[in-house]
Amino acid sequence: MTLILALDFGGTKLAAATVNAGSREWLSYERRLQGANANADTDLEIMRSLIASVLQGKKPDAIGVSFGGPVDATTGTVRLSHHVPGWENIPLKKLLEAEFGVPCSVDNDANVAALGEYRFGAGQGYDSLFYITVSTGVGGGWIINGVPWRGAEGMAGEIGHMVVDPSGPVCLCGKRGCVERLASGPYMAQDARESLLNEPQRRREKLRAESSAVRGFPPLRRLRRVPPVEQTSEGRRGEILRELVGNNLELITGKVVSEAAVAGDELAVELLYRASWGLGVGIGNVANLMNPQRFVLGGGVTKAGENFWAVLQRVARETALPEVHFEIVPAVLGDDAPLWGAVALAMIRL
Amino acid sequence: MTLILALDFGGTKLAAATVNAGSREWLSYERRLQGANANADTDLEIMRSLIASVLQGKKPDAIGVSFGGPVDATTGTVRLSHHVPGWENIPLKKLLEAEFGVPCSVDNDANVAALGEYRFGAGQGYDSLFYITVSTGVGGGWIINGVPWRGAEGMAGEIGHMVVDPSGPVCLCGKRGCVERLASGPYMAQDARESLLNEPQRRREKLRAESSAVRGFPPLRRLRRVPPVEQTSEGRRGEILRELVGNNLELITGKVVSEAAVAGDELAVELLYRASWGLGVGIGNVANLMNPQRFVLGGGVTKAGENFWAVLQRVARETALPEVHFEIVPAVLGDDAPLWGAVALAMIRL
Repeated sequence: MTLILALDFGGTKLAAATVNAGSREWLSYERRLQGANANADTDLEIMRSLIASVLQGKKPDAIGVSFGGPVDATTGTVRLSHHVPGWENIPLKKLLEAEFGVPCSVDNDANVAALGEYRFGAGQGYDSLFYITVSTGVGGGWIINGVPWRGAEGMAGEIGHMVVDPSGPVCLCGKRGCVERLASGPYMAQDARESLLNEPQRRREKLRAESSAVRGFPPLRRLRRVPPVEQTSEGRRGEILRELVGNNLELITGKVVSEAAVAGDELAVELLYRASWGLGVGIGNVANLMNPQRFVLGGGVTKAGENFWAVLQRVARETALPEVHFEIVPAVLGDDAPLWGAVALAMIRL
Repeated sequence: MTLILALDFGGTKLAAATVNAGSREWLSYERRLQGANANADTDLEIMRSLIASVLQGKKPDAIGVSFGGPVDATTGTVRLSHHVPGWENIPLKKLLEAEFGVPCSVDNDANVAALGEYRFGAGQGYDSLFYITVSTGVGGGWIINGVPWRGAEGMAGEIGHMVVDPSGPVCLCGKRGCVERLASGPYMAQDARESLLNEPQRRREKLRAESSAVRGFPPLRRLRRVPPVEQTSEGRRGEILRELVGNNLELITGKVVSEAAVAGDELAVELLYRASWGLGVGIGNVANLMNPQRFVLGGGVTKAGENFWAVLQRVARETALPEVHFEIVPAVLGDDAPLWGAVALAMIRL
């Protein structure tokens, strides 16, 4: 029996699990929130207690680690965490190898989740695939010829900052109309809040302009808007959103926008349309460029419902050349994708 | 001595050459125009005579072929030529292997040229690179981990049909604002012609609108327009273009647009700005997605001068994330890139 220890340093949660190589069932599994004032030291401390709990005194044969931020996968050194301070240049692989005396591999969460879906999930049997996670950010990971492609500096996969609409809204990265700016949960929530915060009349005018900008997208072949929602009175726009959060706009999240869209809120429908449009153009562009067999999409935003998927599929298909074929399927490993990927990562070293 | 026979079936020209494996100098070299009524049969007939001429009775040890159109590189079967009729499903590899009794490899010109620049040109020593040719079309070829990446169906590299401006002009492929629509020579020429054909007054108004659309691009961080050309009278716009072709607008080509831009023609400057902008966004997007070490750019349009390169470099840099590094350099093999690539392709089989 070969015992694998899989670790997941996420943005808000930490997880550890063990599995026998070849098995599809965890032997043990622990997941814990990091808390408000997390830093690299507290993360490592919590992780050590999770490890002690899942190992129960046993010694692993190999360790795989998913880290929520840029990692130099060659040396296993963390570059930084975008969520937790203190992670700059921490030699995570070395630390763990010194502590446990077994080989350890570390990579960023998108690459690791891609490997997880490839070995154990929706990508099994697809030697060239692109995994995309759409949640607080939009990230991606490559499998090419059956192995991860990390790029010359480990930065490959950044579909989130592909520009798909140069006249779109400004992204934190400084550009306009990045896929992440259009499709990530927090940005959808921010745009919803800002629309609702504006004084109603001005808002309505602004939104009409914005929404015609959204309608203006259909440049793509045969592209039509999502089937128009029941046309209620003008006043309805945003009302369902308000109701869902009891008029406390701070509570609006990407998930709330999705729920409001399913319930027919026009503002939410338009924001979600723009998100799926942006992702669809991004995926179509990637298909033209790399011609992978399959796209696997995970993350909270991809649970936004049928309309979201229908628009995404159609726009991606219309953006790709007719000769370029591919499938877009939902990820199946959910929150465990990085952990299963860490298992696969550890097994590469065995 | 290992004798390599390299063949290039282009859109307008055919070429054959021989070289001793390892040498950087052709032993023999022939290039010929296809003529007006070319078809697959006449192409093959001319190529046979070129081959006879370069071989002079010697027998090659391997054959490499660059073909100007989609190819199934696994079987060496041509799918079609976009320029010459009759090439549908011609088993070029089989034909040549039967005729010469030696191993033969066939791939499309962008992939082969990428391999040529990688082995013998501007890509030497760069194991991950993307080659882009910008001329009558915009195509690309990948080298990943030191070998060509053709994609699941041999369609990878199609940066030409990446959408970079969804509100841009309509491309033959049906989408708007593809890189090829903005940056290829024939499209630049077409846009120049159409602008000049419009009745002057209407034209001037339309152009003012179009040019503000071009100015509207600078969404990108710190992006400024090309240094404004000497502001002459309004009447100057397009006049240099007209002069260069003796007012026969049919004679306008991408090259003429480049020359007019260098000479300060405002319309030409704007068209070339849009071309370099589109290519820059495309390259920046590719850098984020694949993180290659180097981009190698060939093709006639890339000879458009310093401004073209300066805008291209800046926009690509601004589109890529700050952590993503790369170089963009001119190809060095010129028209011989496919032939040298064919040599490299043949040598893979030895």
